Amino acid sequence: MSDDFGKRISIEEVEEGNTFTPKFDENGLIPVITIEDSTSEILMHGYSNSEALLKSIESMEAHYWSRSRGKLWKKGETSGLTQSIKKILIDDDQDCLIYRVEIGGLGASCHVGYKSCFYRALNGKDSLTFTETEKVFDPEVVYEGQENPTKL
Amino acid sequence: MSDDFGKRISIEEVEEGNTFTPKFDENGLIPVITIEDSTSEILMHGYSNSEALLKSIESMEAHYWSRSRGKLWKKGETSGLTQSIKKILIDDDQDCLIYRVEIGGLGASCHVGYKSCFYRALNGKDSLTFTETEKVFDPEVVYEGQENPTKL
Repeated sequence: MSDDFGKRISIEEVEEGNTFTPKFDENGLIPVITIEDSTSEILMHGYSNSEALLKSIESMEAHYWSRSRGKLWKKGETSGLTQSIKKILIDDDQDCLIYRVEIGGLGASCHVGYKSCFYRALNGKDSLTFTETEKVFDPEVVYEGQENPTKL
Repeated sequence: MSDDFGKRISIEEVEEGNTFTPKFDENGLIPVITIEDSTSEILMHGYSNSEALLKSIESMEAHYWSRSRGKLWKKGETSGLTQSIKKILIDDDQDCLIYRVEIGGLGASCHVGYKSCFYRALNGKDSLTFTETEKVFDPEVVYEGQENPTKL
């Protein structure tokens, strides 16, 4: 639990109350689903820690904790693909957030160049089909010289 | 990594390939965002392990790993609120899934009784406002005698 937010005192208050008491996991993180406010399209799934969440609430610009880079990350600081937060939602047991955002810059979210990170659907058990076929931007230009956050 | 699915050989193949190579975390889990196929509304955020994902793919009925109960969980086995899977999507680095579903039974998803688990929005830093105000079902009837999965 973080000292920056309310204490989780009872399950009833967590589930049915009006107090924000987010639960951070054993690594101090809470998952965030980011959706485009105007279309409700899911853009990405990331994580915030207490500091990233506080900065997101205070600035209404999406901040995350980058697990692969091990640091706080203001979305768009390199790419210009900022995320202006319109609303933050929390789930029943308060261990997952939704950021409803509008995207700045070229209007995409994914570091591979697609609008959404979810650009492939499963066929059967082993193969994928692209549901987005055209990239919005060229990641080699936008992220020139940056390390790819994807890890094996 | 799970032996049930493809091996992650290169970042290029993970991000841009047609092979399904899901990444499970240190606990053997992968997060799942569940959305209603017909409305694109986000219903819940859960986790699958390799077995739950395989069962979901084979049966096209949503299965999860319940972290609070420590067991495989076929959605709706107690409540009748089953989730028939229409499509599964995967993100860029293949460490998060979307299940696009239609809900059986009373048409809700959340164990508290609301349609979606995300029934509250943040106001400022500390307080929540309900965005769903009416429960679809009475959890004390539907889950009579079951332990509440929410943990402090």
